[in-house]
Amino acid sequence: MTKEITSAANPFIKRLKALVTSKKARAESGVFALEGWRGVKTLLDHESPFFEIEQLVISSDWNQAPTPETIETTRLPAHLFDKISDTRNAQGILAIVRSKPVAFEIPARGRFLLLDNLRDPGNLGTLIRSAVGAGFDGVLLYGDCVEPTNPKVVRSTMGAFAFANTREIARAELDQLLAAGFELCVTTGLGGENLYETAFGDKTVLVIGSEAHGVSEELFAKASKKITIPLAPECESLNAAIAGSVCMFQIARGANG
Amino acid sequence: MTKEITSAANPFIKRLKALVTSKKARAESGVFALEGWRGVKTLLDHESPFFEIEQLVISSDWNQAPTPETIETTRLPAHLFDKISDTRNAQGILAIVRSKPVAFEIPARGRFLLLDNLRDPGNLGTLIRSAVGAGFDGVLLYGDCVEPTNPKVVRSTMGAFAFANTREIARAELDQLLAAGFELCVTTGLGGENLYETAFGDKTVLVIGSEAHGVSEELFAKASKKITIPLAPECESLNAAIAGSVCMFQIARGANG
Repeated sequence: MTKEITSAANPFIKRLKALVTSKKARAESGVFALEGWRGVKTLLDHESPFFEIEQLVISSDWNQAPTPETIETTRLPAHLFDKISDTRNAQGILAIVRSKPVAFEIPARGRFLLLDNLRDPGNLGTLIRSAVGAGFDGVLLYGDCVEPTNPKVVRSTMGAFAFANTREIARAELDQLLAAGFELCVTTGLGGENLYETAFGDKTVLVIGSEAHGVSEELFAKASKKITIPLAPECESLNAAIAGSVCMFQIARGANG
Repeated sequence: MTKEITSAANPFIKRLKALVTSKKARAESGVFALEGWRGVKTLLDHESPFFEIEQLVISSDWNQAPTPETIETTRLPAHLFDKISDTRNAQGILAIVRSKPVAFEIPARGRFLLLDNLRDPGNLGTLIRSAVGAGFDGVLLYGDCVEPTNPKVVRSTMGAFAFANTREIARAELDQLLAAGFELCVTTGLGGENLYETAFGDKTVLVIGSEAHGVSEELFAKASKKITIPLAPECESLNAAIAGSVCMFQIARGANG
């Protein structure tokens, strides 16, 4: 079922643009705009526990693949679609995607990545992609992180967002996790245990700090494990997404090996 | 020795702007503009085998640290400095930096990262930073890579560019490396040897392919080793900078452990 909209004054256009540009609009509606065929196809082909497509929006130019009859689809003139798009070369397809409500429950075990005031959308998207790749069970956003449905974040995950249990976590919830026996591991540039000489259990929360300030004092104080990636002396630190990924793949090895 | 320039029409301003914005201007002059205190301080504090500061340019606002008497310094009005700057919030300092000529010689051994048509400045800068961190001996740029003195690349290295032997490598030079017993390792999404079950010698060239097309057929055909990072089935691939860094740190462990 496809309907056409041709007027820029149509309220639907305004709403779409807001979903692309405004964090507030996304928070209030519980939906976000997912642009590009890779991400849309991922949600069409796979049942995601975390997201579902509410409707599709295509450009009059769109001809890469037919959209399913069962999903409400709106076609826009190409110039209107380009105006809404967050990308320079819009592919001509986007989905309005709803986050499914998933209650916070303390899991019996699992490996989680906790991001402490991470601000860069590219870093968050890349870390979500790596977390899924490394078989981690979730990505927890602590403090003032960039929101996971920001278009740049979603794009940087290259489709992996659909499989990632990414959620904000409050201090009380983190304290519950720790009370349930989860071990909080922070990374530190100097003086921690060597990452490659550390054993990790199956109740692990790995903390990666913000790009500008590293791990906050609060989480550093809560941590029961401090680990250091051994680096050549010429290199002070790694990019946050790199440090997180190198640690996650090492922690996952403990899980597999 | 500090001189002042106050006119936007001064040819020095034009030349500076060209060094920030134009790949051609950088290639023709052999120098580039290094913005920000972190990078400049790195070159002031450390003798780099690869780069040297030719002169400094500061904004009239600059007061974070005195600049050395021994280096020619030009002061600009803040509004002129901001016009030249590539960043949104210019710190008010940049260096005109010359790349020292370093001849290509086949090393007796070493671990090198070879980038195959890598296009994204952030990925290149991050990989240079990780290569220095992992103790790799150089970063080789093959084919049509983003140039290493692009301001975004340099900024993404967070100072590590000063310690990285980053250079373009031609096909004939690569063939010389391989003839000298270096092993070319490509990463592949499926069917390669498990990264964590692979031994790496001390004559290793790790290939990371372009963001859009992966490793080229040419290099795939030349490779004597094909390795795969084990990934959860929901994740098709990793970001190029992540894949390269995870492999480099694993290869470096072989070196240390």
